[in-house]
Amino acid sequence: MEVFVRSPAARAPSAGPLAAVTATVQSHLDEVESRIAQQAAAFDPAIEGYVTYAIGGRGKRLRPLVALLSGGATGGVTSAHVDLAVVVELIHIATLVHDDIMDEAERRRGEPTVNARWGNSLSVLLGDCLFAHALNLSTNFKKAEISRSIAQAAREVCSGEIIQTQRRFDLHLAIEEYFRIVQMKTGSLFAVAAESGALLHEADPATVRSLKQYGMKIGTAYQIYDDCLDIAGNENVIGKTLGTDLRKGKLTLPVLILLRAAPAGEREEYCKLIVDGRAEEMTDLLKNGAAGQSLSGSIQAGQKMIREAQSELTGLPPSFYARSLLQLGDGLCELLEQLRD
Amino acid sequence: MEVFVRSPAARAPSAGPLAAVTATVQSHLDEVESRIAQQAAAFDPAIEGYVTYAIGGRGKRLRPLVALLSGGATGGVTSAHVDLAVVVELIHIATLVHDDIMDEAERRRGEPTVNARWGNSLSVLLGDCLFAHALNLSTNFKKAEISRSIAQAAREVCSGEIIQTQRRFDLHLAIEEYFRIVQMKTGSLFAVAAESGALLHEADPATVRSLKQYGMKIGTAYQIYDDCLDIAGNENVIGKTLGTDLRKGKLTLPVLILLRAAPAGEREEYCKLIVDGRAEEMTDLLKNGAAGQSLSGSIQAGQKMIREAQSELTGLPPSFYARSLLQLGDGLCELLEQLRD
Repeated sequence: MEVFVRSPAARAPSAGPLAAVTATVQSHLDEVESRIAQQAAAFDPAIEGYVTYAIGGRGKRLRPLVALLSGGATGGVTSAHVDLAVVVELIHIATLVHDDIMDEAERRRGEPTVNARWGNSLSVLLGDCLFAHALNLSTNFKKAEISRSIAQAAREVCSGEIIQTQRRFDLHLAIEEYFRIVQMKTGSLFAVAAESGALLHEADPATVRSLKQYGMKIGTAYQIYDDCLDIAGNENVIGKTLGTDLRKGKLTLPVLILLRAAPAGEREEYCKLIVDGRAEEMTDLLKNGAAGQSLSGSIQAGQKMIREAQSELTGLPPSFYARSLLQLGDGLCELLEQLRD
Repeated sequence: MEVFVRSPAARAPSAGPLAAVTATVQSHLDEVESRIAQQAAAFDPAIEGYVTYAIGGRGKRLRPLVALLSGGATGGVTSAHVDLAVVVELIHIATLVHDDIMDEAERRRGEPTVNARWGNSLSVLLGDCLFAHALNLSTNFKKAEISRSIAQAAREVCSGEIIQTQRRFDLHLAIEEYFRIVQMKTGSLFAVAAESGALLHEADPATVRSLKQYGMKIGTAYQIYDDCLDIAGNENVIGKTLGTDLRKGKLTLPVLILLRAAPAGEREEYCKLIVDGRAEEMTDLLKNGAAGQSLSGSIQAGQKMIREAQSELTGLPPSFYARSLLQLGDGLCELLEQLRD
C-alpha cells in the first residue's frame, strides 16, 4: 500500500504505479483535461455552473489514457483521439453523477457530490445532460461505427448497473455472473475506448478486435481492483468510505470466492452476516481471517486477467505506445499486489 | 371538453380532435408501435422486462406523428422515417421515466410508474438505458447530421428541465423565460422530429428550416395546452391528478399572466398563495375567478403559436401530408378551445 500512504493526492495515477504510463502521454492528457473543462461552455448559461462542478473533480482519467494509448499504438495520437478520450470520460462522469444518487453518496474525491449539493432531481437531469452531450460529441467522428459503438457501450454500462442492482444481497450470484456484470458496467467503456482508438486509424480488424479485448480485460481487472480496495484499503489513506459494497449488498469477487470455498456450515454463517448487514465483521474476515485467501484469490484473478489483456498486444507493431499499453497492465498488477500488504 | 367526457381512452388522439390526422398515417403509426415494442429484445434478458414495461404504456405518440408527417410532406414516409419516429419516442419515454422519479409520481396512464414499482435506482438506470439505446439507434441514419441533431435535442430537453427545476417557486420568472423553458423541454424534440423527417429526404435548407420551426412551435403549443389542462381539466375525465404543477412550484403560463396583469395588492396575495402551497385556491382563481382571463390568455397564446406554426407550411408543395400537418395544428387549436368550457 506504499503508494497510497503519502497523501490523498496519491490516488491519482500520477503518483502511483501508473505514473510512468501516464507520463508517456501527459501532454495529450493535459489537452483532454482542458477540452473536458471547455465542455461546460457548450451548455446553456443556466446549466454551465453545474456542469463545471460535475466535470471538475479530477478523476484518474484511465479511460482517456486507454483511448490515447490505443491510438498511439495504431498510428499516433491525433486530435480525434483526444476527442474520443473526452467522450468516454464524459460518459463515465455522467454515470458517476447517477451512481452517487443511487448510493446516496455524500462525497466524491473529497468534495460534496452533485446530489448532496443540489438534490436528486438536478442530479438525474445533469447526468442526462452530460450523457446526451457526450453522445452528441461522438457523432462528430467520421465513422458512424464509432458513435454507434460508444452509444452501445453506454447502454452496456447502464445495463450492467441494473443487473448489479437487481442482484444485491443475492447469495446465489455465481462468480461467472459477477464477471459478466463487471464486464458490462466497467469493461465495456474501456473496451470501446481501446477499440475506437484503433478504428480512428482504420486499423485492420484483427488489431481492432485485440485492442477491444485488451480494453475489456483491463477494465474488468480495474473493477476487481476497486472491489478489493473496498475491502482491503485503508480508509484514512484512500480518502473515501470503504466497505460500502457489502453494506449495499453488492457481492464482489472476494465475498463470492469466500462463499464458494467455505464448508456448508461456515457458508451459512457468512450468509447470515451479509443478510444481517454486519458488513464490518465480514470485511474483517475477508481481510484477516482464514478467509483471507479469498482476497488473495481475487487479486490473483485480477492479475491473471491483466496478463490475458497484455497477451492481446502481441500482434501490435513494437512502439513506444504499445509498450505503454503493456506497462499500464504492469502498473495495475502492482496496484493489486499492494493490496496484499 | 366533449371529447374527454367519453372515457379515459379518449385521451389518445385516436378519439379526439387529432383523430383525423392520426388516421392519415395509421398504418405507419402501427409500424412505429410494433418497432417500439421490438426494442426490448435489444436489451440484456435481465433488463428486457423493465424495458417492455416502460415502453408499453401507450402514449399519444405525437412526436412520431410529426416525424412521419414531415417525411410524408417532403417525399413520402420511408422506413427511415419510422425509425426516426421510434428514436424520438424512445427519448421521450426515457425522459418520462426520469420525470416520474423527480415528481415522485405513482401512476402514469393508469399504471404504476417504474419508480413506484421498482424504486428510484432502477428508474435512473432504466431511463439511461433507454436514452443510450435511442441515441444508438439514431447512429444508423446515413447522415451524421441527423444523429447529431437528435443528441442535441436530447440535451436541450434535459437542460430545459434543469432550468425549470431551478426556477420552481421563482415568482420573478418572466413569461419570456417560461417560453424558453418550454421550447427547450418540449419544443426541441418536436422540432428535431420535423427537421429530421425533411433531412432524410435531403429537402432544401429552407424547407428543413420551416419544418423545424413548425415542430418547435407545435411542440411549444402542445406544452401550453398541457400546462392549461393541469389547471382547467377535469380530473375524473383526464385520468390523472391535476394541479400538480402549482403544488411543485412550476409556474406555468396562466399563473404568469395572472401575476403580470394583477394590481400590486392582488399580486402579493397571489404570490402568498403560491409560496404557501395553497395550490387549490390558486387553481380555483385561475379557472373561475376574475382571474379567469389568464387562462383564456394562455389558450389564445397557444392558438397564436399554432397559427404561426401553420404559416411555416406555406412553402411546402400541396400534398396529403402537408394538409395533415396543417390539420394537426387545427386539432391542437380545438383541444385548447375545449379548455374554455
